[in-house]
Amino acid sequence: MTAIQDHYPDDVAHCYGCGRLNADGLQLKTRWDGEETVAHVTPRPYHTAMPGFVYGGLIASLVDCHAMGTAAAAAERAAGRDIGDGPAPRFVTAQLNVTYLKPTPLGPPLEVRGRVRLATERKATIDVTVAADGVITARGEVVAVRIPETMVKKD
Amino acid sequence: MTAIQDHYPDDVAHCYGCGRLNADGLQLKTRWDGEETVAHVTPRPYHTAMPGFVYGGLIASLVDCHAMGTAAAAAERAAGRDIGDGPAPRFVTAQLNVTYLKPTPLGPPLEVRGRVRLATERKATIDVTVAADGVITARGEVVAVRIPETMVKKD
Repeated sequence: MTAIQDHYPDDVAHCYGCGRLNADGLQLKTRWDGEETVAHVTPRPYHTAMPGFVYGGLIASLVDCHAMGTAAAAAERAAGRDIGDGPAPRFVTAQLNVTYLKPTPLGPPLEVRGRVRLATERKATIDVTVAADGVITARGEVVAVRIPETMVKKD
Repeated sequence: MTAIQDHYPDDVAHCYGCGRLNADGLQLKTRWDGEETVAHVTPRPYHTAMPGFVYGGLIASLVDCHAMGTAAAAAERAAGRDIGDGPAPRFVTAQLNVTYLKPTPLGPPLEVRGRVRLATERKATIDVTVAADGVITARGEVVAVRIPETMVKKD
């Protein structure tokens, strides 16, 4: 199934966390899984907090990008469209809250899940979990807003 | 003036955001500036949200690491020690909240400032700002806790 990030317009597809046009980035991909969204990312060996554990800033990044993707996918669904039916709307982060429940082991792929708590056309609140080996290690709550026109630089 | 991260013990100095032993990392450095702490980081060209603006996950990472450094520096100060008087205590993130006030321009060095709101020997709450060209673009509130023994892998 196609990911929402594959349908961001080219001029807003350079995000370090999830932009398909950012060759140096993490390229997170958000897809529907029933009423939830899911993404899988394997941290790089240097994404360490302490040796053996994933860097908290990376976890915050995954929460952030997956929430933006979920907000975009939800806006499409609310409009009666599936991912890929057209260019995806682009959201940016207004508020990012992450609670670290326990250390996240470095090595296994991480499963990032999103659920829409509230959504309008212009704003959404998304709940996110991050899990390793089936154990949730962090929870996020993210407020997403539609991208302001001033953030889009046309060529 | 020496930075707190230069005095983390070797076995907990590999953080992607601020570890001096992580050659691939951001190597953020937290120093006292009166009652506040300060760090300066210039994002890399690929740390983009949209072209021209800094990735929010990077901002969250800087807030996170600077808050941990501030918590460690504050614990040292509370014990009557300056940075570098001995090995620095190591804190990890329990809660990370970031509010994005406006887009952060990509290019200029970012100034990250920390202030201790509450601190005990084992826990601290740190307020952080991120500014570009003198304008605050993000605010963070971070809860730091002393690192659990289980996160330190001795060689």
